[in-house]
Amino acid sequence: MSSKIQDEKARERLIDLAAEFYDQFAGGQIPEMELPTRTKSNIVFDEESNVWVYGDRTSTRSANSVRGARKLLKAVYTIDFLAKQLEEGRSSTLRELYYLSESWDNEEAQFSDQDESNQLVEDLEIVSQVTREDFHMRPEESGATLMGPLELREQTRRGEREIHCQKDVGEGGYQIPNNPDTIEFLDHDIDFVLCVETGGMRDRLVENGFDEEYNVLVVHLKGQPARATRRITKRLHDELDLPVVVFTDGDPWSYRIYGSVAYGSIKSAHLSEYLATPEAQYVGIRPQDIVDYDLPTDPLSDSDVNALESELTDPRFQSEFWTEQIELQLDIGKKAEQQALASRGLDFVTDTYLPERLTDMGVI
Amino acid sequence: MSSKIQDEKARERLIDLAAEFYDQFAGGQIPEMELPTRTKSNIVFDEESNVWVYGDRTSTRSANSVRGARKLLKAVYTIDFLAKQLEEGRSSTLRELYYLSESWDNEEAQFSDQDESNQLVEDLEIVSQVTREDFHMRPEESGATLMGPLELREQTRRGEREIHCQKDVGEGGYQIPNNPDTIEFLDHDIDFVLCVETGGMRDRLVENGFDEEYNVLVVHLKGQPARATRRITKRLHDELDLPVVVFTDGDPWSYRIYGSVAYGSIKSAHLSEYLATPEAQYVGIRPQDIVDYDLPTDPLSDSDVNALESELTDPRFQSEFWTEQIELQLDIGKKAEQQALASRGLDFVTDTYLPERLTDMGVI
Repeated sequence: MSSKIQDEKARERLIDLAAEFYDQFAGGQIPEMELPTRTKSNIVFDEESNVWVYGDRTSTRSANSVRGARKLLKAVYTIDFLAKQLEEGRSSTLRELYYLSESWDNEEAQFSDQDESNQLVEDLEIVSQVTREDFHMRPEESGATLMGPLELREQTRRGEREIHCQKDVGEGGYQIPNNPDTIEFLDHDIDFVLCVETGGMRDRLVENGFDEEYNVLVVHLKGQPARATRRITKRLHDELDLPVVVFTDGDPWSYRIYGSVAYGSIKSAHLSEYLATPEAQYVGIRPQDIVDYDLPTDPLSDSDVNALESELTDPRFQSEFWTEQIELQLDIGKKAEQQALASRGLDFVTDTYLPERLTDMGVI
Repeated sequence: MSSKIQDEKARERLIDLAAEFYDQFAGGQIPEMELPTRTKSNIVFDEESNVWVYGDRTSTRSANSVRGARKLLKAVYTIDFLAKQLEEGRSSTLRELYYLSESWDNEEAQFSDQDESNQLVEDLEIVSQVTREDFHMRPEESGATLMGPLELREQTRRGEREIHCQKDVGEGGYQIPNNPDTIEFLDHDIDFVLCVETGGMRDRLVENGFDEEYNVLVVHLKGQPARATRRITKRLHDELDLPVVVFTDGDPWSYRIYGSVAYGSIKSAHLSEYLATPEAQYVGIRPQDIVDYDLPTDPLSDSDVNALESELTDPRFQSEFWTEQIELQLDIGKKAEQQALASRGLDFVTDTYLPERLTDMGVI
C-alpha cells in the first residue's frame, strides 16, 4: 500500500474515533471508550492466527468522573495532534508527544508523565486498530541490524534507496529503520533467518562467514528487540516464507526475548498479528545444551528462579519443550551465555553447535 | 597504514612484552610489570596533547607472590592468544576471551571472572601502547550511526565498500564498524560534526533535514558512546579538521557523556590521545537553557546532586563554563532532557535552539 494512502487511512480512523465521542455527546450520552483488559489473565490463544491476543474482558473509560473526562480530553488532543502529523507527513517520538502536550492550550489536556502518554497511544492503537508506526510515532530505541543475502528497497524521506545487506553495507550491517514497512524486499538468497541476542555473537557469526556459508540472514536483536526488529522478522517470515530461528543466552530473560519474537508481549497483545512470528523456533542456549556441551555457567540468582517459575505459569510457555527445559534449568540451578560456547574455541558455534542444532531442528 | 603491517606491529609489541619476562627470568630476576596507577588522583593534564593522561605514580605487578605470579601467567597466556589471533587475521570479543580461557591447559591461567580479563587487556594496552582494537579485540557494544555528507571507504573482511552516509544508506544511517580505523574518508561536504545523545533527537534532526541544511554530520552517541564512536569522532576532527559539538540531555550523567567524548575517561586515560577530542564543544542542554527557554524539567534526585558535586571536584570539569553551569544547576535543582525542547514545537530545536546556540558558539 502506498504510504500516502496508508497515512490517509490512519488519519480517517483517528477522526472516526473523535467523531464517535461527538456523536455520543450529540445523542445526550456520556462519552466513553471501551478497551480490552490488558492483564496476563486476559490473553488467549487465537487458533486462527496462532498468536496470543486479548480475551473478552473489557474496561470502560467514561467521562462520568473528572478523572475519566480528563482522560478522554487528552485522547481528543492527542488524536488532533496525530491527525495533523499524518496530514503533514511528519513523525515524532513518544517522548516528544509527552513534552509537546505542554504547549497545548488546555492545561487539563497536558500529560502528567510519560507513562500516561505512552499508555494513551497504546489505547488508541487498540481502539483504532492502527499501529503506532502508522500514526508516525517513532520509538526512542533504534532497531538493530541485518546482514545476509537480501536486497531491499527502502523508501526514505530523501527518496528510494536500494541496498544489498551484504554487498552494500559495512561490517556493521544494514540498520533497520524505525518503520520497516517502508522496506520492500526485492531479491534474496536466504535459506533461513537467524535472530541473535548479543552483539558479540552477531559479530562472531559475521566474522566466521556463517551468513555466507549457510545463506542466513542474521538479525541482531540487541537484547529485548525493538518493535522494528520484530516487525521485519515477521515480514521476512510471512512474505518470503522463510524459517525463523532465535539464538539467545540460556536464562529466563532471554527466553522472554524469544517469547517477544514468537508470541508477542502481554502489554502489546493487540499487536501480536503485526509483530509476532509464532513459527519462530528456539535454537538455544537450552538448559539441555548446558548439560550436553558442559558449558561454563553462572548460578541462578533468586530473581532468575522467580522468573523461571513465572514462565512455568505463563500461557505462552506451556509447550512440552519449554516446560521440560525450564524444569531442567531449575533442577541444575545454572545459566549460560551464548558466548560461553567460546570455551570450546571460537569456531565451535559455527562449525559444530549451530549446524548440529539446526540439523536436529530440520532447518538445515 | 595497511592493516597487515599494523597487525604485525601489534604482534611484535606483544611478543616484546613476553620477551621481557623471559629476559627477567634469564637474568635471575623476579619477573614484573610496571603500570601507571589508575585513579582520579593520578590523572594529569597534558598541555601538549590537550588531554588528561596518567601521572607519574605507578604500581608494580610482580611474581614475588602467588597472586602476582598468577597474574603474570594469565598475561602470558593472553599474549599468546592475542599474538595467534593477529597472525591468523581473526578477532574476538572480551567476553569470548574470558570464556576461551577455560580451554587453556593450565588451570591457574584461567580467568575467575570477566572483570579480571577485561582489566588484563587494558593493562596490556597500557604497557604495549597498542590499542585493544589493534589487538583485534572487539567490544560487545556496537558503535552507533552516522548521517551526513560524508563518503567513506570501509575495509571489510569481504572486500572494500564505498558508502556515502546520506545517499547510500537508509534512514537508519551508516552503522559504524567496531574498528573504525578500517575506514578511509574519501570526500565530504561537512561543515561540522554534531554528536547527539539520544535516538529520539537524532531522528528529529534527520527528519527535519538538519544534516542537509547545515552540512552537518550527525553522530548518534547512543548514550555513553562506544569506543568506536569516540574514535571516529576524533578522526573526523583531526583528519578533516572539523569542529565537533556535543548535544546531550541537561543532567550530570550527560555531562559525563560529553566528558568522555572530549576528555576521555579516568579508566582509559591511556587512550585519551586515541579517543578524546579535547576541542569538542558542549552545545547543551545547559542549565542556562533550562532557565532561558523555560524548559519542562524534573527535580534533581539525590544521586544527581552527588554526581554534580563530584563533577565540581573532577579535574576535567574545572573550566569557568562548567563550574558556572553546575553551580547554577545545583541552585535551580532541576534537570531537562534534549527532547524537552519539543514543548516549544517539533521544529524549535532545528529552527531556533541549535541555530542560536551554534551561532553564539561561532560554529555557524
